[in-house]
Amino acid sequence: MPVAEVARQMLDYYPRELNVDRGLFVRCIEACYDCAESCTQCADDCLGEESVQELTSCIRLNLDCADICAATGRVVSRQTSVDANVISAIVQACIAACRSCGDECERHAAHGMEHCRVCAEECRRCEQACQDLLPAIGGQAA
Amino acid sequence: MPVAEVARQMLDYYPRELNVDRGLFVRCIEACYDCAESCTQCADDCLGEESVQELTSCIRLNLDCADICAATGRVVSRQTSVDANVISAIVQACIAACRSCGDECERHAAHGMEHCRVCAEECRRCEQACQDLLPAIGGQAA
Amino acid sequence: MPVAEVARQMLDYYPRELNVDRGLFVRCIEACYDCAESCTQCADDCLGEESVQELTSCIRLNLDCADICAATGRVVSRQTSVDANVISAIVQACIAACRSCGDECERHAAHGMEHCRVCAEECRRCEQACQDLLPAIGGQAA
Amino acid sequence: MPVAEVARQMLDYYPRELNVDRGLFVRCIEACYDCAESCTQCADDCLGEESVQELTSCIRLNLDCADICAATGRVVSRQTSVDANVISAIVQACIAACRSCGDECERHAAHGMEHCRVCAEECRRCEQACQDLLPAIGGQAA
Repeated sequence: MPVAEVARQMLDYYPRELNVDRGLFVRCIEACYDCAESCTQCADDCLGEESVQELTSCIRLNLDCADICAATGRVVSRQTSVDANVISAIVQACIAACRSCGDECERHAAHGMEHCRVCAEECRRCEQACQDLLPAIGGQAA
Repeated sequence: MPVAEVARQMLDYYPRELNVDRGLFVRCIEACYDCAESCTQCADDCLGEESVQELTSCIRLNLDCADICAATGRVVSRQTSVDANVISAIVQACIAACRSCGDECERHAAHGMEHCRVCAEECRRCEQACQDLLPAIGGQAA
Repeated sequence: MPVAEVARQMLDYYPRELNVDRGLFVRCIEACYDCAESCTQCADDCLGEESVQELTSCIRLNLDCADICAATGRVVSRQTSVDANVISAIVQACIAACRSCGDECERHAAHGMEHCRVCAEECRRCEQACQDLLPAIGGQAA
Repeated sequence: MPVAEVARQMLDYYPRELNVDRGLFVRCIEACYDCAESCTQCADDCLGEESVQELTSCIRLNLDCADICAATGRVVSRQTSVDANVISAIVQACIAACRSCGDECERHAAHGMEHCRVCAEECRRCEQACQDLLPAIGGQAA
């Protein structure tokens, strides 16, 4: 069962009342997991390139983005005693990481790095899903 | 793009020769991410239950299983300089975690905990996907 | 060798020029690791309490704070191609998580929960170490 | 307060009876955190080297070892409803990761990479601390 379907079912079975737009949460959670994997693999694909010397900035941003997306996916998943300040702050950090990593990957995609093209697209989707969630958790667009 | 599709494309764009059964890797990676999310949310759903006192073993195993699945998903994703001993050992650990967490969740599913039922199913799928990968990476069934 | 000493030596051996206040980075890295462990164990200690029902908010914030501190410790550790926006945003998220978790733990410390007292102190230290790092990475106090 | 001291105090405040050798657990937890940081920074130091092309295996093993040590440190920290199979399996995986990463780092240390020398030492210490813990948790030496 894909992450999005897992997330949806688990939110449905959450035992307390949930007054949240579940679709926004599910899309953000899914995007965080997808992007975490995309960045983990893009870093590894870059490591495998002969031109790795020119990809060190990309690898570094991939690693940061993977770590931050993974943490964000977990925090957004939790519904017990939600703290708007914490969620808002980590979602903002996720937006910043996806934006920087997406920009860097895009530069290499323009020079034929196909894994960077895929990763840039995942970063853009995750940035957007995080932006879409912000108003629902009381945060402002980053 | 779901984790499975991300993983497949990124393996396809891996720049060095890959003599692996990509389907087995993709299924294991996907299962690790799905199960990590399932366990993260099951722990949170348990925390929200009035009967949380009876669910502390389940929460603990959920947290372990989420951490181990997340690490396994990352390690299995990397194709640069594969070390069979390391991958085999973390996949074995993932099997152990999924088995214990799946058993515990199953007990609570039998008493009407629907989030534990979903989580038990994800644990079983992840355990199986890990078992299926083991022969391909030179490991023995756990 | 403790985390702080590991971090200091590894920064000293970083092969490119580093124009940063290493002491600030080392203290922030160390505080993130210490606080991640403190929150991981406080969640587990809370799970072991007979009064776990009253500690579910504390466990949830512990889990968030552990995940965010762990990600922050990694991001702050990396010196290759530093992106001020990303570091600043994750350090801000760490401050928010430590503040909320520290406040919650402090409430339970006042009622005799000694693990919450220790954890509150680690959260305060980590929040301060993050605040101290912000100006050095071009960020503003949170 | 360093990770070792945090771990010791939090074990002391664990609310249920603990019939474990706390020193062994504290040393293993500390070693996992130290090694996770050492590997995270060694990967970044390698990325910063002009000879990064020759260090891609090292970076890959560093990333695996950091992820596995981080997961192991968390699992070993938890005392609620201990499952010997899970702990034993992740500690074995940690031993495998530290051994492979330590071997690889040692090769580069012999050619003057000082960050690899430090990292190799941390890997050896963590491998030993894990080996020492195994009998206490019902596992066999790896």
